[in-house]
Amino acid sequence: MSNETRTSVTVIGLGLMGRALAAAFLRAGHSTTVWNRTAGKADELVAEGARVAPTVGDAVEASPLTIICLTDYDAVRGLLGGDDADLTGATLVNLTSGTSAQAREAARWADLRGARYLDGAIMAVPPAIGTAEAVILHSGPRADFEAHEPVLGALGTVTHLGEDHGLASLYDAGGLVMMWSVLNGWLQGTALLRTAGVDAVTYAPFARQLAAGVADWLPGYAEQIDRNSYPAEVSALETDVRAMEHLIEESEAAGINTDLPKLLKATADRAIAAGHGGDQYPVLITQFTTPTP
Amino acid sequence: MSNETRTSVTVIGLGLMGRALAAAFLRAGHSTTVWNRTAGKADELVAEGARVAPTVGDAVEASPLTIICLTDYDAVRGLLGGDDADLTGATLVNLTSGTSAQAREAARWADLRGARYLDGAIMAVPPAIGTAEAVILHSGPRADFEAHEPVLGALGTVTHLGEDHGLASLYDAGGLVMMWSVLNGWLQGTALLRTAGVDAVTYAPFARQLAAGVADWLPGYAEQIDRNSYPAEVSALETDVRAMEHLIEESEAAGINTDLPKLLKATADRAIAAGHGGDQYPVLITQFTTPTP
Repeated sequence: MSNETRTSVTVIGLGLMGRALAAAFLRAGHSTTVWNRTAGKADELVAEGARVAPTVGDAVEASPLTIICLTDYDAVRGLLGGDDADLTGATLVNLTSGTSAQAREAARWADLRGARYLDGAIMAVPPAIGTAEAVILHSGPRADFEAHEPVLGALGTVTHLGEDHGLASLYDAGGLVMMWSVLNGWLQGTALLRTAGVDAVTYAPFARQLAAGVADWLPGYAEQIDRNSYPAEVSALETDVRAMEHLIEESEAAGINTDLPKLLKATADRAIAAGHGGDQYPVLITQFTTPTP
Repeated sequence: MSNETRTSVTVIGLGLMGRALAAAFLRAGHSTTVWNRTAGKADELVAEGARVAPTVGDAVEASPLTIICLTDYDAVRGLLGGDDADLTGATLVNLTSGTSAQAREAARWADLRGARYLDGAIMAVPPAIGTAEAVILHSGPRADFEAHEPVLGALGTVTHLGEDHGLASLYDAGGLVMMWSVLNGWLQGTALLRTAGVDAVTYAPFARQLAAGVADWLPGYAEQIDRNSYPAEVSALETDVRAMEHLIEESEAAGINTDLPKLLKATADRAIAAGHGGDQYPVLITQFTTPTP
């Protein structure tokens, strides 16, 4: 590829998210090469100034920085882990969703193929890409992140978590389990209140305030975990369990699902059986860090 | 009881919470009568100006407004549901923890005994009582709430939810399930990150930001529930389930507990089996409002 077709950044994978990434680079004024297994997905981006590479190898060679956003890590390895593309000297930032083990393995084969590698996770929906609201996590060598931060910054609020390539996937998993937990806690409450004729819109502001309030406790509770000391400053686990019994009773009486209330209580019961009844709630970390019995 | 010993408000039950309630009334300048089954608990309050009633009947007669804060509804009924105390003309505000069915039943016997009755729930720990941070929910006749709101206001931020006496308990249960859900979502993430050597204090600000961010979605998601229409504006349930599989894999690989990730996926799987795979997450209300299969 001749010098005049070199671009600042390449995006491989033009699903909904990949197209949003490429569009954000173009809007920020970065010359952008794109590649997708099936053509056609690039048409709008080309109209906005993107260049289409004929092969995935050409795409990687076109820019000092290549962003990968595919369906899964198997697809990444299938495209770039073989001998088809020369990765020597390239920097890959892989934003494909996967596990920390997959991220660490990808870092190993990228290294063997002479590429620099950062793993990443996108904590945002496609329409938010390119705004400060879109948080994009990166892990791997800090120097590689810093070298490309000015270009990566076009995508949103970009952060570097640490050298371990698995960190972005782990934070992503933690963020997702928090997201679904808040939503399920809200759904259980919404279902309860509906039995008294309260609609979801009426109940939601209360649930929102509760969730945000409890979120504020986390840094203080985290200190208890790191000290491994859980004095019952606010309430003891054995008191919480009595309230969990009320929650199960309410849910049963209302004829709604009881899975979540029962899991809450089962987890607390195990901690009490292990002698933690007089401790405060974060002592449950002892149950979360051990395999399901 | 002679007129000169009449007080503004009576508090029955002087556990940790009951003492905090009485102390807040005294601090706000309301003359206060207290009663507890075992004496001694009142000593500090007496030093602050409280009067101790010799019997529970005298306690109710001493003030136009009586706050009840006991261990459970059986204790409330045992004390006030029999013929020992004359409740005619009294207004009872029962802040004892219980279920909505217990609250509605208490309202019935209070009515039979000639008393006005409000049920309530305290969304606060004892040290917060008397500050705006302490949210105290009330349900029952609005006129009775409004008549006593100036005195009740000494306890914190007091609100009236509606005429149905069960509402305070239901909101309380909803608030608690949200609280435990946020905490458990955070604990699962904390356990995951610990496997990569990230301590709880380092991870907590990320979890806090996530929880508060997701809380902001609830009012919009609630509109989908009330319309019973769940267009996948952000992400479809079948996409979420793939990420749930990653979460389970991560948790298994890390050797930590998988109960919460598996419950999240089982609930979503049931909704997909019912044909909701292309809908957005709040469609799970269909699973929460039906009994555990």
